[in-house]
Amino acid sequence: MSPARIAASLAACLFVLSAAAEALSEAALAEARALRERALADDTAYELVRSLTTEVGPRLPGSPGDARAVAWSLAKLKALGFSNVRAEPVTVPRWIRGDARAEIVAPWPQALAVAALGGSVGTPDAGIEAEVVPVGSLDDLKAQPRERIEGRIVFFTARMERSRDGAGYGKTVGPRGSGAAEAARLGAVAMVMRPAGTSTSRTPHTGAQRYSGGVPPIPAFALSNPDADMLEQQLASGLPVRLRVASTSRWDGEAQSANVIGEIPGHGRNDEVLLLGAHLDSWDLGTGAHDDATGVGIIAAAAKLIGESKRRPRRTIRVVFYANEEFGLSGAKAYAATHGDSIDKHVLGLESDLGAFRPYGLRARVAPDRLPLVRSIQSVLEPLGIAYHGTEASGGADVGQLRELGLPVMDIVTDAAPYFDLHHTANDTFDKVDPALVRLNVAALAATAYLAAEAEDGFGRLPVASKPAQ
Amino acid sequence: MSPARIAASLAACLFVLSAAAEALSEAALAEARALRERALADDTAYELVRSLTTEVGPRLPGSPGDARAVAWSLAKLKALGFSNVRAEPVTVPRWIRGDARAEIVAPWPQALAVAALGGSVGTPDAGIEAEVVPVGSLDDLKAQPRERIEGRIVFFTARMERSRDGAGYGKTVGPRGSGAAEAARLGAVAMVMRPAGTSTSRTPHTGAQRYSGGVPPIPAFALSNPDADMLEQQLASGLPVRLRVASTSRWDGEAQSANVIGEIPGHGRNDEVLLLGAHLDSWDLGTGAHDDATGVGIIAAAAKLIGESKRRPRRTIRVVFYANEEFGLSGAKAYAATHGDSIDKHVLGLESDLGAFRPYGLRARVAPDRLPLVRSIQSVLEPLGIAYHGTEASGGADVGQLRELGLPVMDIVTDAAPYFDLHHTANDTFDKVDPALVRLNVAALAATAYLAAEAEDGFGRLPVASKPAQ
Repeated sequence: MSPARIAASLAACLFVLSAAAEALSEAALAEARALRERALADDTAYELVRSLTTEVGPRLPGSPGDARAVAWSLAKLKALGFSNVRAEPVTVPRWIRGDARAEIVAPWPQALAVAALGGSVGTPDAGIEAEVVPVGSLDDLKAQPRERIEGRIVFFTARMERSRDGAGYGKTVGPRGSGAAEAARLGAVAMVMRPAGTSTSRTPHTGAQRYSGGVPPIPAFALSNPDADMLEQQLASGLPVRLRVASTSRWDGEAQSANVIGEIPGHGRNDEVLLLGAHLDSWDLGTGAHDDATGVGIIAAAAKLIGESKRRPRRTIRVVFYANEEFGLSGAKAYAATHGDSIDKHVLGLESDLGAFRPYGLRARVAPDRLPLVRSIQSVLEPLGIAYHGTEASGGADVGQLRELGLPVMDIVTDAAPYFDLHHTANDTFDKVDPALVRLNVAALAATAYLAAEAEDGFGRLPVASKPAQ
Repeated sequence: MSPARIAASLAACLFVLSAAAEALSEAALAEARALRERALADDTAYELVRSLTTEVGPRLPGSPGDARAVAWSLAKLKALGFSNVRAEPVTVPRWIRGDARAEIVAPWPQALAVAALGGSVGTPDAGIEAEVVPVGSLDDLKAQPRERIEGRIVFFTARMERSRDGAGYGKTVGPRGSGAAEAARLGAVAMVMRPAGTSTSRTPHTGAQRYSGGVPPIPAFALSNPDADMLEQQLASGLPVRLRVASTSRWDGEAQSANVIGEIPGHGRNDEVLLLGAHLDSWDLGTGAHDDATGVGIIAAAAKLIGESKRRPRRTIRVVFYANEEFGLSGAKAYAATHGDSIDKHVLGLESDLGAFRPYGLRARVAPDRLPLVRSIQSVLEPLGIAYHGTEASGGADVGQLRELGLPVMDIVTDAAPYFDLHHTANDTFDKVDPALVRLNVAALAATAYLAAEAEDGFGRLPVASKPAQ
């Protein structure tokens, strides 16, 4: 590095330190460190996860479990001492899973473990039997001549790669969302897919899929990875492979659910809001432990710990348990519609929706001149093993909806590899939750939220044009 | 160590070496080493496992899959060049799994993943609903007053410990075999158990259970470990926990199956037999990959490699794919009945029925004066990481039946920890089979079987009183 560059770096460091010092008092930093340590010895979040998964269980939008979850949330937030606890009504679509079965009929009969994708239509009672056509991707499908697809069952074969950043999910989830619609466009009679997940267990991976106007809805299913392997083994024989699928899935109109909200009022600027989000709904194969009972527990416990602090922050901490993240972000859209007018009073948003695994980074999408404040917050997280991870924060599926309205967001970045071993499968259950990792996540979020709610000048605004990634 | 002891040890070593040298020529040892190396580069066994799991699949005794497996075995052994390939008829009991469901009704409704235990009767169509009584063990159950059990569903809670030697299995499998019978004796209406397996996946663990005369047969089920955790979490509330179980399991008389046998004839003493066993049947939740398609593949490939040797051993290598190991050892009993007269012509038996995991020991239950020969064989396995592991060999569930007739047995001891993660669950599938570990097992078995079939004097006889362990 040249002397000039060294000088420039030093200047940048000094700027960082001075700007941070401007925004955060030493007393605030000390309080955040103490909060971090208190969180590392507190099992409020773990106990909330236990309670939600055991006493409520699966929370498919519009289901009895979803309604019980809203009641559970109101009771828990009140019991934890939150203020302004309320349920804001959200209308959600209601889909009924029913039963699903799949079996290879030829060349070698074998039953396959399978789950209907969320939103799939069912089949006739006798099921649908047809030859299987494997395709690697949506693009591969679109390149097929109609005669190869028509009357057949399309099988998407791409395997999700396992990695800490979870990048493989985005690369394989495409067919889950629109694979059935694209297959139907070419005349397919059903769609099955290798899961957009890394589990090696025979627990299929569900998730939302959507039909397209102008093509008939065809039933859509995910296999487990071992069952996709079996289908590929049989296809490798070169013999025609025939599959029979059957499902009683159906739509059942709409239902009332709610965003459940609670607050820890600020001292001095209590009309300004630091927003913490997680989603209350879950898929129904497991009990939604890491997706997203842990998020519910982590944000509630972080806010509660902040509320117990002797040195309360300036701004109000608002926790939102969103309705129906999984099936169209109904709760996030309702929140934006209801609270859009006061968006300028929201100083920052964070979401916890990647389970309770090891945190390793802090990402912040804020006004560029507020990055020194982010660095200062990150310094308090350093002992937890959390490094600064750049500016590509998303804010999560729910809170991230507010980015297009200008809300700055941060992400506490956690290990996504184990998350996608469980995500949307029957194995997303409480026994997979490690209390030590829950505490680490609460510690990181509590310290971050405390400092963000306390900082003199906040995080500026994002350009309103910036569309959230989904 | 005292000088006298050192001298004694040296003398013992010299005895070992001289006795081994007596029994095995240097040419035989060299051939065994070459065979070991050829096996490490050969995928015959892996390909057999692929074929059996893909083209036949689950092989519940008496099922269509079982019949297909017999035909598959005859064709494969002939294609591999075995002599005297034949199916010896075996009558097997036929049990139909049907469907099983379980759900906690109170205090907090939740569906549980469950499988009927093999041999269980079904329930009335509406299922059986009753309060759950947890018990730790069979002894704990037997100590309960009748009024605590009568009319209730007994839940066995003991958790299997995971270890290399698989010792936890024996400690937890008791309730699977006789838990329903003992619970019925005290008036229970059904039995559920935490699985005798270490999987953390929501894939219940099945296995054989037996009723007792004088008590009514009650339905018996295994949960998965996460589902047993859920039941325990609800019980921990102190509230009464009510469970509803339903199953269409039933018995369906008997069926014809077969032991499938093939031989590699010996040179010189071809009327003497080195017996290699594995079982052809499997439970039906997975495809019986490690239990016991790998055994079938390993013994067939080891024998085939020996048959291709330019220096064939003196004795005949006989492979037996046993019928119905899982549900009462019908094939092993039939073999003993048919071949009991010629038991003295059987020089040694080995079985492969603990999956294809890392081998680490050689155990031999032989006449004490033949232990030097065992040591000599083990020296050829040393480069594979296989140490001498004492004399407590069982010979496996099938071959071990012949111990009471005096047959010496050896075990190639393998890592049981991963085996009991998969054993008897839906996850016992081909994707869990590692070709490198299959080759290691074939190498160990081929070298052992070659030397055992070649050794001048064999292994003596065991006391006829020695009952096989089950």
